[in-house]
Amino acid sequence: MEQDPDSNYDCAFLDDAITDGRVAHGASVREQYASDESPYPGRVPDAVVWPASSDEVAAVLAAADERRVPVTPRSGGSGLEGSAIPIAGGIVLSTAEIGGVEVSPDDLRATVGAGVVYDELNARLAPHGLRFAPGISSGDVATIGGMVATNASGFNAVRYGETRDHVRRLEVVTADGRVVECGRDVVKTSAGYSLKDLFVGSEGTLGVVTEVTLGLVGIPEHRRAALVTFPSRADASRAVADAIGSGLVPGAIEFIDTTSMKMLNAYHDDVTFAERPTLIIELHANNGGIEEDLAFARALCEDHGMRSWEAADEENLDDIWQARRDKYHATKAYREDWDVALVGDVVVPISSYPEIVEAVARASDDLDLLTACVGHAGDGNLHFTSLVDPDDGEMVERARELNERVVRTAIGLGGSATGEHGVGIGKRQFMDEEHGPAIDLMRSVKRTLDPNGILNPGKVLPDA
Amino acid sequence: MEQDPDSNYDCAFLDDAITDGRVAHGASVREQYASDESPYPGRVPDAVVWPASSDEVAAVLAAADERRVPVTPRSGGSGLEGSAIPIAGGIVLSTAEIGGVEVSPDDLRATVGAGVVYDELNARLAPHGLRFAPGISSGDVATIGGMVATNASGFNAVRYGETRDHVRRLEVVTADGRVVECGRDVVKTSAGYSLKDLFVGSEGTLGVVTEVTLGLVGIPEHRRAALVTFPSRADASRAVADAIGSGLVPGAIEFIDTTSMKMLNAYHDDVTFAERPTLIIELHANNGGIEEDLAFARALCEDHGMRSWEAADEENLDDIWQARRDKYHATKAYREDWDVALVGDVVVPISSYPEIVEAVARASDDLDLLTACVGHAGDGNLHFTSLVDPDDGEMVERARELNERVVRTAIGLGGSATGEHGVGIGKRQFMDEEHGPAIDLMRSVKRTLDPNGILNPGKVLPDA
Repeated sequence: MEQDPDSNYDCAFLDDAITDGRVAHGASVREQYASDESPYPGRVPDAVVWPASSDEVAAVLAAADERRVPVTPRSGGSGLEGSAIPIAGGIVLSTAEIGGVEVSPDDLRATVGAGVVYDELNARLAPHGLRFAPGISSGDVATIGGMVATNASGFNAVRYGETRDHVRRLEVVTADGRVVECGRDVVKTSAGYSLKDLFVGSEGTLGVVTEVTLGLVGIPEHRRAALVTFPSRADASRAVADAIGSGLVPGAIEFIDTTSMKMLNAYHDDVTFAERPTLIIELHANNGGIEEDLAFARALCEDHGMRSWEAADEENLDDIWQARRDKYHATKAYREDWDVALVGDVVVPISSYPEIVEAVARASDDLDLLTACVGHAGDGNLHFTSLVDPDDGEMVERARELNERVVRTAIGLGGSATGEHGVGIGKRQFMDEEHGPAIDLMRSVKRTLDPNGILNPGKVLPDA
Repeated sequence: MEQDPDSNYDCAFLDDAITDGRVAHGASVREQYASDESPYPGRVPDAVVWPASSDEVAAVLAAADERRVPVTPRSGGSGLEGSAIPIAGGIVLSTAEIGGVEVSPDDLRATVGAGVVYDELNARLAPHGLRFAPGISSGDVATIGGMVATNASGFNAVRYGETRDHVRRLEVVTADGRVVECGRDVVKTSAGYSLKDLFVGSEGTLGVVTEVTLGLVGIPEHRRAALVTFPSRADASRAVADAIGSGLVPGAIEFIDTTSMKMLNAYHDDVTFAERPTLIIELHANNGGIEEDLAFARALCEDHGMRSWEAADEENLDDIWQARRDKYHATKAYREDWDVALVGDVVVPISSYPEIVEAVARASDDLDLLTACVGHAGDGNLHFTSLVDPDDGEMVERARELNERVVRTAIGLGGSATGEHGVGIGKRQFMDEEHGPAIDLMRSVKRTLDPNGILNPGKVLPDA
């Protein structure tokens, strides 16, 4: 869209489009909405709105579209690639106030407002013995709307799939303010174009998701986990590739490298982990066969030189996960005044997992960085964070270079630039390389659904 | 697209677009491509082509698009809704000659030409202990390209999902002859618009799929099945709803009504089934927990008045399935000179399964028809076939009326007009009712990707 970078948009029209009290024009509020959890710079928007219904979203979008005012949808603000940053000014449209959870246990289904937080949804589902299962790390902040926008996933995707796999139906508001339903309340259908799958992962650039019907899974009756250490990262990552290739379907299988374990030891006064490459393996089942699976997983780890196996049952399962859960904060705390440059997020075919793990280590050595790795390894997903002195521009640049090298390696292995965090601002530069000529089709779809280019400009698609 | 119904298209240009021998202009060949397994009337195409590669498909499409000649993609020809019938004449483009299977067992993955037949693919995968899992009935004829086109599924979708759930990457040729890759060789990604999901289920109206990268699952180490009878169809269908609602994930769970069992007894000289509503329940596992699941399933059936439980292990599992597998032929053979009017295919939320089963029985009684039902019940999917005298136009009309009533009931229950057969010609009339305003977005997408309307005209989308 055409835009003068120095001009602001007059957003007074919003006072007619939305209920009183659901719009803010004041600078102090607007400034809070210029950034999110990502390291990317934003621009202070001209207004922030918190519609409470799809009709209010429709009123805002119709009025904005008519006036060609950019609209950046936002929900929890926990995104790591800048998907919710208003780089063109205009309106930030928060879906955080769109609530509501309606559970249909007999159909393993819930219909959920876009602003409902992941952990809150699962708290509502627990009394029914049910769960929305992707298992994201930021579940205390991230909303269902944001998860749909980025096709988020996490710890448990290896068994239960990404957000997309659970979305049965979406309510979406189009750029010009139409409210449409995409998909049906069923587990399968062959009734034409799957528009819901087009909106999932589109980060609010094609429409604003206001309500989601999700498929649910039962909370497993049995859970077992083990913290397993290996002589080398190659042994650990090969164990993961073998486990998945063998057909084992764990509830979770996490990789944590030696540097991360050191950071966790430094962070905690009360625990000391072995400072070796580590896997957390968690198994789920509704029958006693879980013990057989656990023995199989252990034998497989032994084949890869396993050094230690610390098992846990339902009662002390959380102790095992404590290691993984504190990783981000432990990294941030590791060197005073230093910070993580960015959170890397790539995904590769599972047989290439050892290769991508080595690629990060090699690049980190080459570039003289301190880099910690963890990953939802069973999906081929790897996260990496380099710690940098934020005042040392050259060091920050080396961390950016590391990210670029690793992403290009992942794409070269047949993988993807982002496993679960989305494209946002940070991964746009890799989209041509990853998608090739399909990018032209994506641009066509964008032009069709958002002809005036008001929806989340500057995200997902690379510059033409 | 504009078309004079009486004119033919001059397709001589195809001789330049495609290798000699891969095009037919003669009437005897063309006539074979005017119809498929569905009851809908077609029109004899002006030419048939069998490209052997995506480049040949691209050459045909580019030339046809330039000349505005309709192209109807076709593969196995086993579709039941007329998706592959050339209702506007022009070219039938068969992908049956696009072969090739490349298996990557370590990544649980195969890259497959669109013309590869389902059963042949699984025969190639079996030595690796792997399987492409939707479990369709027509696996001896249906191709992977056709399965992607209709988002096909069948017996085993209840555990493993529909075709969509297994597609990681597609090679697609656009209407104007560009070859594009959609998706990556990974199990999850958040890298922008999921174009592959737009092409899956679009029945060749948005592009022609030439190659597919599929995710595979391990052949289960243990399988158990049982043929279970119930006092009434309500008891059987409630047992299904309860089983799925309880979180049991069977390998398959099929419903077969009393009329179908009668037809099977009449068809076979050597077996006699109890003529009662029946479920086939099959369980899959890689550990000994399967016996616990089997006991759970049996107890659940007992709660619903189970009359008999005939169990089978790996050795005699096929005997159990014989009942289901011959159903279509048994129905056709049941009354001399009569035929099935059409094969119904609806899907509803699982808690509504008893209701849709009753709706078919009620409509069949009202309309004085002989109707047999089977269904992949665990998905909420129900098939129904009324036997009619094809020379009795009024009876054929009543069967059409039954289909319409059942489809509208399914949609009213939150379900879908088609669970796995696609829209084709037969279900177009219900798409407005099912999708509402989203149909306008689908039309926009169609216009964007096929601006000249050459791809499979008259399918999927309803008349404007």
